[in-house]
Amino acid sequence: MITEFTIGLDLGGTNLRAAAVDRAGKLLDRISGKTAYSEGREAIVHDMVEAISTLRNRFTGSLAGIGVAVPGFITLEDGIIRNSNNLASLENFAIRDELSRRLGTPVILENDANAAALGEQWIGAGRNVSDLVLISLGTGIGGGIISGGKILRGSHGMAGEIGHITVVPNGNPCGCGNRGCVEKHASAIAITAMARMLGLGDDLTPKEVYELALAGTEKSEKAHIIFSSMGESLGILLAMLVNTFNFPLYLVSGGLTGAWDLFAPAMIAEASRRSFTFRASFPRVEKAQLGNEAGLYGAAYLPWLG
Amino acid sequence: MITEFTIGLDLGGTNLRAAAVDRAGKLLDRISGKTAYSEGREAIVHDMVEAISTLRNRFTGSLAGIGVAVPGFITLEDGIIRNSNNLASLENFAIRDELSRRLGTPVILENDANAAALGEQWIGAGRNVSDLVLISLGTGIGGGIISGGKILRGSHGMAGEIGHITVVPNGNPCGCGNRGCVEKHASAIAITAMARMLGLGDDLTPKEVYELALAGTEKSEKAHIIFSSMGESLGILLAMLVNTFNFPLYLVSGGLTGAWDLFAPAMIAEASRRSFTFRASFPRVEKAQLGNEAGLYGAAYLPWLG
Repeated sequence: MITEFTIGLDLGGTNLRAAAVDRAGKLLDRISGKTAYSEGREAIVHDMVEAISTLRNRFTGSLAGIGVAVPGFITLEDGIIRNSNNLASLENFAIRDELSRRLGTPVILENDANAAALGEQWIGAGRNVSDLVLISLGTGIGGGIISGGKILRGSHGMAGEIGHITVVPNGNPCGCGNRGCVEKHASAIAITAMARMLGLGDDLTPKEVYELALAGTEKSEKAHIIFSSMGESLGILLAMLVNTFNFPLYLVSGGLTGAWDLFAPAMIAEASRRSFTFRASFPRVEKAQLGNEAGLYGAAYLPWLG
Repeated sequence: MITEFTIGLDLGGTNLRAAAVDRAGKLLDRISGKTAYSEGREAIVHDMVEAISTLRNRFTGSLAGIGVAVPGFITLEDGIIRNSNNLASLENFAIRDELSRRLGTPVILENDANAAALGEQWIGAGRNVSDLVLISLGTGIGGGIISGGKILRGSHGMAGEIGHITVVPNGNPCGCGNRGCVEKHASAIAITAMARMLGLGDDLTPKEVYELALAGTEKSEKAHIIFSSMGESLGILLAMLVNTFNFPLYLVSGGLTGAWDLFAPAMIAEASRRSFTFRASFPRVEKAQLGNEAGLYGAAYLPWLG
């Protein structure tokens, strides 16, 4: 018999997913659907409420809470998405309170990278670890920091914006106004850009560059250099995180972890070379385990955080 | 009538200081002396015990605890100084337990930069702030991080080693094995080295370089450039810290804060240019207030931390 469960919802770039999960992290049921961005705010909010309500009505146990993970900056005190590239229609709208009102129960809102870090810490690669940093490698680079078992949020929920940390002081210009942000040197977009600059092709995906590296053609060396360069940039970031936090675990998540064998050796070598704390403390640097489910589980865990 | 007090001891590079302090941070009494490094371990331990015992015997109130701040890496679980340039004779010696044994009461050991951050948070520039980073500018650069009112220590007490964060990937070689550590570009040693490289003099102190900058001679422009370069390197570090933590307060301490007017504008400008979190969240960046007393007060606060 189920005594208690939570519902987590992850509002991703293209998918809306919701799950009912018990205290041990066991998936009880789930719902997935496309995110109706083009139809605007009301359609998105409707779909979110619908998914949560449907799951809630399938169980007779006690609902311990609802957690919602969304991309972008969130001001936690008022539960508002302040800035989100993918969710422009939800910006500066009191989404947490609106969801609470329609569902008739409190909702906890969280940034998706923070939720992913929490999910990995709960039932993924960070089990039994109370301090970790999650580095999320996608189109850009995001991060989530768990310190003492809690999400490190900072004063405006903006902590963990590690994608915009400088790794090349005079490096590539970034939309944020800086030059040499790590996400300009180690993200999916950076790989495509490097492939273009090295003459491998105009709009290659990271997967295509990866396949070029393995193909054993005259283009392979350049493709290898792209991933080792990516690894070196990540290594500078990693050395900085290790020097700052001295945490025991650093997780790397996102689609680019598929190229782990090509970039991770350079990343580890660079971090080791640059950080004596790394060399002295032997932190674990590993792939995250929950894939793109981490944010969903992390959202479901939010009500248990207390 | 004094009901409760603590004793803090700061074992500095040249001085040993101890103070009896009440719960409100009021100094009740203090003792200072030279640190007898050349006389070896027993002399140092003897002086520490003597200073603490003397203060303890002067009060009839209840001693709530004893905190000791020491330079170097400390493994907190066993209370041992693992590595310290200034305290080689105390390395790998169970100093915490030895002090406890001789004093007949528990002693709390802490790294001096962490203690300084705690002191500032208690009764210095960080009053009423529960999240801050202290950047200590001296011969090298150290750091202490207070998160949620507690010291962020990391898994081996090595968190906050921000002096060895890379700000210039191919910059000056550092004894730690890295190149371009911020302490190679923004510490007292870095200022002396830049003055030498720019032909201002062979072994100028930061104070002498500062005076050259203000002198209005043909050397002043170069001296100004040294401090603005120092500020830019600190700005890269500061942007990184703001992106990572999104804390409301960053304090700068140490003797080099005497040159604040020459390096701080470049530091703030660089941090602002490089971090949209900085521009969006308006963190306070200020001089610490307790000077070289911060570690002493932080040590005295350790027993209250619980």
